[in-house]
Amino acid sequence: MRILVFGAAHRKGSFNRKLALNAAEHLAKAFPEDTVEFVHFSDFPMPVYDGDLEEKDGLPKGAGALVEKLAQAGAVVISTPEYNGGIPGALKNAIDWISRADDNPLDKKPLLLLAASPGALGGVRSLWHTRVPFEALGAVVYPTMFGLPKASEAFDANDKLVDPKMGARLEKLVLEFRGFAAKLA
Amino acid sequence: MRILVFGAAHRKGSFNRKLALNAAEHLAKAFPEDTVEFVHFSDFPMPVYDGDLEEKDGLPKGAGALVEKLAQAGAVVISTPEYNGGIPGALKNAIDWISRADDNPLDKKPLLLLAASPGALGGVRSLWHTRVPFEALGAVVYPTMFGLPKASEAFDANDKLVDPKMGARLEKLVLEFRGFAAKLA
Amino acid sequence: MRILVFGAAHRKGSFNRKLALNAAEHLAKAFPEDTVEFVHFSDFPMPVYDGDLEEKDGLPKGAGALVEKLAQAGAVVISTPEYNGGIPGALKNAIDWISRADDNPLDKKPLLLLAASPGALGGVRSLWHTRVPFEALGAVVYPTMFGLPKASEAFDANDKLVDPKMGARLEKLVLEFRGFAAKLA
Amino acid sequence: MRILVFGAAHRKGSFNRKLALNAAEHLAKAFPEDTVEFVHFSDFPMPVYDGDLEEKDGLPKGAGALVEKLAQAGAVVISTPEYNGGIPGALKNAIDWISRADDNPLDKKPLLLLAASPGALGGVRSLWHTRVPFEALGAVVYPTMFGLPKASEAFDANDKLVDPKMGARLEKLVLEFRGFAAKLA
Repeated sequence: MRILVFGAAHRKGSFNRKLALNAAEHLAKAFPEDTVEFVHFSDFPMPVYDGDLEEKDGLPKGAGALVEKLAQAGAVVISTPEYNGGIPGALKNAIDWISRADDNPLDKKPLLLLAASPGALGGVRSLWHTRVPFEALGAVVYPTMFGLPKASEAFDANDKLVDPKMGARLEKLVLEFRGFAAKLA
Repeated sequence: MRILVFGAAHRKGSFNRKLALNAAEHLAKAFPEDTVEFVHFSDFPMPVYDGDLEEKDGLPKGAGALVEKLAQAGAVVISTPEYNGGIPGALKNAIDWISRADDNPLDKKPLLLLAASPGALGGVRSLWHTRVPFEALGAVVYPTMFGLPKASEAFDANDKLVDPKMGARLEKLVLEFRGFAAKLA
Repeated sequence: MRILVFGAAHRKGSFNRKLALNAAEHLAKAFPEDTVEFVHFSDFPMPVYDGDLEEKDGLPKGAGALVEKLAQAGAVVISTPEYNGGIPGALKNAIDWISRADDNPLDKKPLLLLAASPGALGGVRSLWHTRVPFEALGAVVYPTMFGLPKASEAFDANDKLVDPKMGARLEKLVLEFRGFAAKLA
Repeated sequence: MRILVFGAAHRKGSFNRKLALNAAEHLAKAFPEDTVEFVHFSDFPMPVYDGDLEEKDGLPKGAGALVEKLAQAGAVVISTPEYNGGIPGALKNAIDWISRADDNPLDKKPLLLLAASPGALGGVRSLWHTRVPFEALGAVVYPTMFGLPKASEAFDANDKLVDPKMGARLEKLVLEFRGFAAKLA
């Protein structure tokens, strides 16, 4: 199985990039026969959606590349920040562009959502809102999600989760999700 | 009272720009002493939010200009499309940038949400999701909202609502909202 | 496979009971080897949740019986009304009692949500809110849902959907869902 | 001003009843000329909503009494538990009955939502879902809300909040809300 993993933030030192990396490493270790593709959200640049721009130029190159990555994957893991209690505009904007592709790469695609946040709540409010546009596009969002609170103290110098209990909880969840995704393949 | 009105879409022929214009005209006619400021969303260009970009360059010029317009206004009316069952990434991205300003221009600000959509549901799903980030930033979102279905047939050549009942319903709502906003001033 | 089907309203002439019945009949016809169990929500009476009552008497008999039916089923189809823009208190109350059972019968259970409503929107706002508590309990809610607008004119004297297109759309969706549920079994 | 305050749980020792009581006491102390009416949710018993029952017997006595209390109040404060990530069925059921009254007592009514929860998140997920049916009925839900985490350790023997910072935060919010409600009166 091919699994696409990314953190939905453009910032280089993003906590969500780090959390996504931890998830990718658990998958790669447990399923060496899988292709776990860890990508950077910032490698798929796209402008803010504008219907006139779309009519003129079609799908932006970055959006097209992300559509292709999603289409190739049998399962997807995204770690997303919470901005103002909801999905980041940057991630929703990517979804809006993706939805304009000729073929919908998210239809029936198994998707696991994670979140890391510097606050005490770990981004759980946002996670529930983030499900909606993905489900509206047909993704099968795994019921269980994962919120990492106090993310600024959560990673060591190698971007690994410091707390072994948190690490074990993440590992258990991503392996469980991998089994779920395999059934739907 | 100063009232800021805009449609949250960049497309020049946007139905939401037209619906916002109808709302602005009802306000201007009924309250000639008010300053009803109808602006174009595309006059406030801003990139997709990126924490590194913010650290380097601060608030983008377009975001800063929108913050100023919001801060000057005593009430705000926004008409927003529905993309993939929720708030457009473009609007959420603007909110995310606005939330990074030194002073929050949305705190306790009366806000009326409208939606126009080519479909049969008039964007009502999106409206409920769109309330959330505005309320998270302290805006007082008016309980009643307005969804215009089948928007591609709803306007005449002068961008006026064709159906007089729909027009009367919009007029009643915006004037009601104006009274509400005046109490909170 | 055993599939539990019900309409989440107590009213005898409930549109949602009728819509659920149509779904059950499509399943029974297409999968004669399945056990399609169509039940009445009112056969599972339970009081409004009260922690003191629970401590005194445990799970009410009706709640226990619904937990058992859910546990036996490999998949579940629920058609639910929309009350005040959201999940009916009656259905949420049943979920709250179910969540107090020793074993969670909803964990990883495939669930299809339908809605019938006398209004023009077919209960679509409610459907998105109704997903949340089911997903919080681990149910795998099928991404696609089904809203039946103008339900008071939608059924004939035998409780069949009058509009053949609507019937075909429902049939397609429930069979698709049956295939999905089989993969997760 | 007359302010109705209650905790939306039937359990006698309910944390939300205690939190509501703390809010009521802050209001009564700061606004001695107000009538702060602290009531018990369990004094308004009502069955699970059933359309047939309504047709036969009309509004249940408990629902009618709650409608009257809401109608008399110029502002309302409710503290609500979180059940399964959302609004308790018991509270939603009360809203569903209230919405069947001849006159809607919630229209344009200022409402402050609080939550107490034994968990780490303080019921914040639920609060956002709880706004929706109230706003659908026209209530002006105050943008800021209040979540009390770890509620089982939060109150002393006299049901007062132990942590003075938490108490001060609650006091500030309810007084702010009282000023807001006065403007809308």
